[in-house]
Amino acid sequence: MSERVQRKNEARRLEILRAAARVFRRLGLSATGMREIAEEADLSPGNLYYYFSGKDEILLFCQERTLVRLLAAVKEARAAPGAYAERLRCVMSAHVHCMLDELEGATAHLEVEVLPEAMRAGVIEKRDAYERAVRGLVAEGMKRGEFARTDPALVTRAMLGAVNWTARWYRPDGAQSVAEIADSLSEYLVRGLVRAPRPRAVK
Amino acid sequence: MSERVQRKNEARRLEILRAAARVFRRLGLSATGMREIAEEADLSPGNLYYYFSGKDEILLFCQERTLVRLLAAVKEARAAPGAYAERLRCVMSAHVHCMLDELEGATAHLEVEVLPEAMRAGVIEKRDAYERAVRGLVAEGMKRGEFARTDPALVTRAMLGAVNWTARWYRPDGAQSVAEIADSLSEYLVRGLVRAPRPRAVK
Repeated sequence: MSERVQRKNEARRLEILRAAARVFRRLGLSATGMREIAEEADLSPGNLYYYFSGKDEILLFCQERTLVRLLAAVKEARAAPGAYAERLRCVMSAHVHCMLDELEGATAHLEVEVLPEAMRAGVIEKRDAYERAVRGLVAEGMKRGEFARTDPALVTRAMLGAVNWTARWYRPDGAQSVAEIADSLSEYLVRGLVRAPRPRAVK
Repeated sequence: MSERVQRKNEARRLEILRAAARVFRRLGLSATGMREIAEEADLSPGNLYYYFSGKDEILLFCQERTLVRLLAAVKEARAAPGAYAERLRCVMSAHVHCMLDELEGATAHLEVEVLPEAMRAGVIEKRDAYERAVRGLVAEGMKRGEFARTDPALVTRAMLGAVNWTARWYRPDGAQSVAEIADSLSEYLVRGLVRAPRPRAVK
């Protein structure tokens, strides 16, 4: 396949994803079929099946895309110079955007269990790699003395839980924008890690 | 019904709940029927139906119990004297125990959606009351200057998300006990709220 055709294919798959996200949101996941997605994407069912073999493959594509974005964000943060607090803040903020932005948001909160078993392995592997990378960032910040010493695995899970939970309560017509939520939440989560400055000795 | 009979009834319902929790854990929620619960509780199916009209009523009883415990914990914390940080820490710790302790843990992570619609209203009402009460505690701590000023609703949701998420990753055979997880997690979550002490003026 030529590069141009591949790019065109990918762009079309993203368009379909956007359409699918709208239908999932409107009808719920279980009530949505390929027929409804095709209609929303303005494609014939046959044409839709050319891009995706079924609803499961659309869900898989969506979860994989989210995880690829998250892995890229944490990789960048680990390689960046500067304070660990700021780097971790960027990762958590990117994660909130992934959860709530229009495209992935509709399915990012769905657990891997919605996929048939044969499709889960790759998603689980990427998810674990992401968690490990965030934990690595937390542990390094502790080693450098920037973060208070505590259990990096537990704190990482606490942060990821708080961020993943946003998909449960976020409403697009709510008072705060996604960017505002990402800012406040990531700031709060990192503040719990940062070591309080030592009280100065009174002379 | 005499008080003695009521007490006996309640104790029997708790025994059934414990048995149901074990089966849910072993077989999964959807594969568990009243027959399996009766067997595990060593009751005839007819006898089981005397205590619960069906699996849904067992789930409802379980969710209600959890919420009653959580509401009691936050009520106590709001009435207690002393630092807001410590009071909030107690609530979060109680919440972790509710999520992970043997009895309620098996179903506390299940969302209200597992209940038939007619049963949801009471659970949703209690859940909202609990969230409001935690938010109130956070907002009071901010007003008193003990917590940094930020959005109390957002921080409350972040804390509840982190705590609710424990049910997803906790394994009874893991390295940490429920009490250790409750301690570390509640400490981390409250630390993100506490105002850093003002740097002393250098004279």
